[in-house]
Amino acid sequence: MREIRIGLIGAGFMGRAHAIAYREVGAVFDLPAAPVLEVIAEIDQRTAAAAARKLGFRRATGDWRQLVNDPAIDVVDITTPTAQHREIAITAFAAGKHVYCEKPLAMTAAEARGLAARAAKTGVVTMVGFNYLKNPIQALAKEIIASGEIGEITDFRGIHAEDYMTSADAPMHWRCGGPRGSGVVADLGSHILSLARFLVGPIASVCGTLDTIVKQRPVARGSRRRQRVQADDQARFLVRFERGCGGTVEASWVQAGRKMQLAYEITGTKGSLAFTQERMNELKLYTAGQKPGREGYKTIATDPNHPPYGAFCPAPGHQLGFNDMKVIEVRDLLLAVAGKGKAWPDFREAWEIQRVIDAVIRSDAGRRWVRIDEIERRK
Amino acid sequence: MREIRIGLIGAGFMGRAHAIAYREVGAVFDLPAAPVLEVIAEIDQRTAAAAARKLGFRRATGDWRQLVNDPAIDVVDITTPTAQHREIAITAFAAGKHVYCEKPLAMTAAEARGLAARAAKTGVVTMVGFNYLKNPIQALAKEIIASGEIGEITDFRGIHAEDYMTSADAPMHWRCGGPRGSGVVADLGSHILSLARFLVGPIASVCGTLDTIVKQRPVARGSRRRQRVQADDQARFLVRFERGCGGTVEASWVQAGRKMQLAYEITGTKGSLAFTQERMNELKLYTAGQKPGREGYKTIATDPNHPPYGAFCPAPGHQLGFNDMKVIEVRDLLLAVAGKGKAWPDFREAWEIQRVIDAVIRSDAGRRWVRIDEIERRK
Amino acid sequence: MREIRIGLIGAGFMGRAHAIAYREVGAVFDLPAAPVLEVIAEIDQRTAAAAARKLGFRRATGDWRQLVNDPAIDVVDITTPTAQHREIAITAFAAGKHVYCEKPLAMTAAEARGLAARAAKTGVVTMVGFNYLKNPIQALAKEIIASGEIGEITDFRGIHAEDYMTSADAPMHWRCGGPRGSGVVADLGSHILSLARFLVGPIASVCGTLDTIVKQRPVARGSRRRQRVQADDQARFLVRFERGCGGTVEASWVQAGRKMQLAYEITGTKGSLAFTQERMNELKLYTAGQKPGREGYKTIATDPNHPPYGAFCPAPGHQLGFNDMKVIEVRDLLLAVAGKGKAWPDFREAWEIQRVIDAVIRSDAGRRWVRIDEIERRK
Amino acid sequence: MREIRIGLIGAGFMGRAHAIAYREVGAVFDLPAAPVLEVIAEIDQRTAAAAARKLGFRRATGDWRQLVNDPAIDVVDITTPTAQHREIAITAFAAGKHVYCEKPLAMTAAEARGLAARAAKTGVVTMVGFNYLKNPIQALAKEIIASGEIGEITDFRGIHAEDYMTSADAPMHWRCGGPRGSGVVADLGSHILSLARFLVGPIASVCGTLDTIVKQRPVARGSRRRQRVQADDQARFLVRFERGCGGTVEASWVQAGRKMQLAYEITGTKGSLAFTQERMNELKLYTAGQKPGREGYKTIATDPNHPPYGAFCPAPGHQLGFNDMKVIEVRDLLLAVAGKGKAWPDFREAWEIQRVIDAVIRSDAGRRWVRIDEIERRK
Repeated sequence: MREIRIGLIGAGFMGRAHAIAYREVGAVFDLPAAPVLEVIAEIDQRTAAAAARKLGFRRATGDWRQLVNDPAIDVVDITTPTAQHREIAITAFAAGKHVYCEKPLAMTAAEARGLAARAAKTGVVTMVGFNYLKNPIQALAKEIIASGEIGEITDFRGIHAEDYMTSADAPMHWRCGGPRGSGVVADLGSHILSLARFLVGPIASVCGTLDTIVKQRPVARGSRRRQRVQADDQARFLVRFERGCGGTVEASWVQAGRKMQLAYEITGTKGSLAFTQERMNELKLYTAGQKPGREGYKTIATDPNHPPYGAFCPAPGHQLGFNDMKVIEVRDLLLAVAGKGKAWPDFREAWEIQRVIDAVIRSDAGRRWVRIDEIERRK
Repeated sequence: MREIRIGLIGAGFMGRAHAIAYREVGAVFDLPAAPVLEVIAEIDQRTAAAAARKLGFRRATGDWRQLVNDPAIDVVDITTPTAQHREIAITAFAAGKHVYCEKPLAMTAAEARGLAARAAKTGVVTMVGFNYLKNPIQALAKEIIASGEIGEITDFRGIHAEDYMTSADAPMHWRCGGPRGSGVVADLGSHILSLARFLVGPIASVCGTLDTIVKQRPVARGSRRRQRVQADDQARFLVRFERGCGGTVEASWVQAGRKMQLAYEITGTKGSLAFTQERMNELKLYTAGQKPGREGYKTIATDPNHPPYGAFCPAPGHQLGFNDMKVIEVRDLLLAVAGKGKAWPDFREAWEIQRVIDAVIRSDAGRRWVRIDEIERRK
Repeated sequence: MREIRIGLIGAGFMGRAHAIAYREVGAVFDLPAAPVLEVIAEIDQRTAAAAARKLGFRRATGDWRQLVNDPAIDVVDITTPTAQHREIAITAFAAGKHVYCEKPLAMTAAEARGLAARAAKTGVVTMVGFNYLKNPIQALAKEIIASGEIGEITDFRGIHAEDYMTSADAPMHWRCGGPRGSGVVADLGSHILSLARFLVGPIASVCGTLDTIVKQRPVARGSRRRQRVQADDQARFLVRFERGCGGTVEASWVQAGRKMQLAYEITGTKGSLAFTQERMNELKLYTAGQKPGREGYKTIATDPNHPPYGAFCPAPGHQLGFNDMKVIEVRDLLLAVAGKGKAWPDFREAWEIQRVIDAVIRSDAGRRWVRIDEIERRK
Repeated sequence: MREIRIGLIGAGFMGRAHAIAYREVGAVFDLPAAPVLEVIAEIDQRTAAAAARKLGFRRATGDWRQLVNDPAIDVVDITTPTAQHREIAITAFAAGKHVYCEKPLAMTAAEARGLAARAAKTGVVTMVGFNYLKNPIQALAKEIIASGEIGEITDFRGIHAEDYMTSADAPMHWRCGGPRGSGVVADLGSHILSLARFLVGPIASVCGTLDTIVKQRPVARGSRRRQRVQADDQARFLVRFERGCGGTVEASWVQAGRKMQLAYEITGTKGSLAFTQERMNELKLYTAGQKPGREGYKTIATDPNHPPYGAFCPAPGHQLGFNDMKVIEVRDLLLAVAGKGKAWPDFREAWEIQRVIDAVIRSDAGRRWVRIDEIERRK
């Protein structure tokens, strides 16, 4: 069987999740090509070597450029902080590598656009890790919408709220240090926007606000020195989709109690759907025209009728977890690299998501509705 | 015991609910005054007489003016279609009667403002039937917020969605016949706005849109003749409260599957609340600072610790229903008429709610943020 | 319209709930006869007079015999402690009155049997207040079962758990003072058994145990003197229905956290139902043969398709509460007294429920399966 | 690092789940020893070779005896049908191998007892795959109970219901072919019993019934020929734990709609717990003594405070799935083989579970209470 040799940059939370996925994917799916954990890069040689031992990579390096330019490598897998994505990706494109990058792809829409444009020129496979899209229940939701089971879509109500920055003692991190719009709207907002686009389609215009609720944070954990926060920690905006329907979207990392409220309600002329990632194996479905006295939302649990659930488990009721989403994501990557199917969401899609975010930032600044195509024109 | 003599105008759904409440209230609460079902008015004498027999009124009339001017009447209770509210209320004020009116108070904010102004001059008791506010769980929510248990409020996410107009075969009714803004934003929007104001306080500005999703409806049930609908059936808007925090609000009567999604999530710096009228006896509460490993939302069920639940039932677990809210509302009315406490929400409050609605209408028309105090100035 | 004159004995929690129901029932339902609150009896004249004022009775008495023998009275309504039920009911039968009695009807099956036998001889209407049966959602459940929508019934899993006696400081009450079997199995067990019989039919045999978990309690609230408890506070038993299927039943008043877990899961060869009184307006329904990928439990909310919900509220989503069940119960009583329909559950049914309880007591004592018809034979 | 060489017998659903777990475990946990996928055995060489390629084993064999006697193998991992467990395990013990076996360990308690006795003599590590015990939320439940947070345990209400055999057209399988007691009580009953013992402790006696609801099944999928079913498909029993408290237990594979209702409610004198595997990342906790008006069940979601969740994911809200339980199970196995800690549940525990099942079978046959120690004495 053909081998696809992986070079992974970064061994943090996401780096490790990727490694686990590569190790598992071949046993779960029947693939035309097998991933090989070839090289891992970390901040220095020693850290890299430890990660290689832990995660099962053949080689280790303290220099990501070496990895990127290694002729043995087929796929450059980027799990570093976002600020580094651009340089690594450009170098990888120059070396003719396929690029798999954690979300968000870039610091701004302009940066994302540049990367998408380069990717388009080189023709390599690109993919961005919006893992929540890989939940089989989202494919089900999309199928329900596409089949017309809930009619024409008339409303999207989406949110991604967590609470990990609720405490004013949670220290600054790279996302807090940026300007208004570099915060939660980009971090968590991109997830709910990726679902909105996946399920309801392109967004035409937005109108919203960005708040900074916690105005000062310690410069580091436990430090008494506090720094002013300018980045947003709470975003709310109205959206209008190209298909005509509207919606509301929220993103927040200061909503006490919410651990993973990546949730939506989608309404159509004949029914509706409701989902929250906190119960990621369930989808609520209502369809009009039920027998009177028997109307109600149905709670559908993921089962072998919802591919690729069955690859993990042949029986219903055995739930998938977060790491399984990454296995599906890696499958999609490997298939695309092997010439079977298209990787998705790719850099182009990541740019489209970023455009919406930039439109929200502009809307907040100008207190007005902003068309998404304004973003394309000016940058 | 003192008697408070009621004149009820209208014997439809709400008229009957009021009558039930008057009959029940004395057995539930210890009151300083007893309501007497003195006169009921309906469209004609015969209908009124039947309603009087059914609901237990002493007398009946086909002429509401006669009721309003009857010296025996203390309280004029208006449950007619909204278009008639103004004239009846003005006549009642002229006769020096207390006025209890179903929501919405008026067709426009200007009309509501006029009524509120007149009420203020006459000094009578006024109350508007925003019955969902009377749920003891809302008093609990308000207490939790006021006590600081969830910290400073940072977000309000509210909705009132139903589905009774989802079908394009649902016929026109008086609300559909009006212009953009006379539809669901006023009908259901007023309920979620009443809760927003009750729990989070005055609203400073709004920005939103009104959609008309079903564009034609039969002129009557079963008719083939269809008429163009101009009124809104789906509203979405951003709000900014005077206390500084923001939020999103939706109102819709075309959300298939939603029978009574009058729901909110309120987040503060130290916790959050979540409620839906579909489970009207439950409130979800999260407070920060729980023991690690034991964090979670608590589901609180209404019980005798949440007055006036205990007046209905001395034990927990015995739920309240819709009609019980009306009994509490009527209690509040009777207490105010008897000089104990203040009726609330009164005409002034109804006007404040209507101002927000008018601001949304203006925002939709102008595609811009509108301050609530603009409404006051211009009309 | 014909009048039905009520004599109510007892003005506690249940007495008041009955009074509220009588006051409300005529406004909710179209009835061939109107209840008149004629006389109320309490422990003494003064208490009775206060209750009459509060609840709207014409007359009051400190002597229940006077009430029972009052020629003006049509229905004797008994809401006293259970120990008094027998004597009052027998006196009422002797006076030719209809009898409406709170549950449990009697202290033992033998006592219940005697009352049922006398009632049968006199031919008066009898009814016992198993109010939870009157929830429209139970009629829906029964209809679903009867129609074969879930196939042949194969399993019943029922419970009635509350927590009001969980604390060892909760004082003795009349139920605790009796022997093993006079406790929770009779008090709460009778409710879940009434549902089991209503939905699944007669029970053929039982095998179970009774526990006394809290072994001593204060003789009165706050007292330091403690008394040994012999009555059961936790019951568990297997049941076999006459139709062949089996089940498990629990009753407990010491299950910390449960405020009203009167709940069941009923499974058939083609589907299943699940209900809990804590969400009394919802029924979960699963039917086999759903489209693959769309299988799931449906949550049905009570609405006007589930009579008599529509008599309370013409629109879905407006929930019923505990007191509304009593209004339905009182409707059924009045209809039966007026010669329309049969009162149910009557004394005979209450005896049947008590027989099952006695069989459980015998099973606990003998550590064996007990057939229900053993109870009939020996007593 | 030390290597632990695995010989896996069987490449079906469970064989594959084990293989995935071995591949993943080193990247998730820091282990003192690394598993090596040395040999896989299947029904014939060709099937084995394909499985080896798919799952990543070095070698393949069509003869499990060869695998068991291979000097390179440290652990014999048995995922074959239950009927083969005994012979393979005995052969492995003879070869001095550690044995990891899927549940149920054996066909009867006697067989399990024999295996446990041999295991005790040889001193090797044994483990049985009751994977649901490895859910971090069960460790949390155990900790809550052990710490006294919910007081003395007074009730256990457990069930494991699924619906995969509900249809009378579901064909016979090996479990259906056996006598009464070889069916669901052993298959699914063992899971809920393993949880009961884990959380509440040893069981002293049982009393119950076994039903065969579907009485005939096709001999094979699609076949018209039907065979009589003697095995149980619905079990219900009362239990008494050694610590004194009682409970009810059900097991069924014919409960339409239930996909994985492995669920319990555990009540203590100061609180209670509720769990269902259908929402495997959530535990409901009620503790007495909450502030009045703020009482309620808390829904706790698994997070890094519940080890070893954090090894999979450093943030809350990222759920675990079924396969993750197997990774934890394999970790425990490898630690025990490496001399760190004790494997659990071992063959001894599997035997104890089987004893309870045998006691239920005897109780059903004799329609009486059966003490667990009767089983020990007679076999």
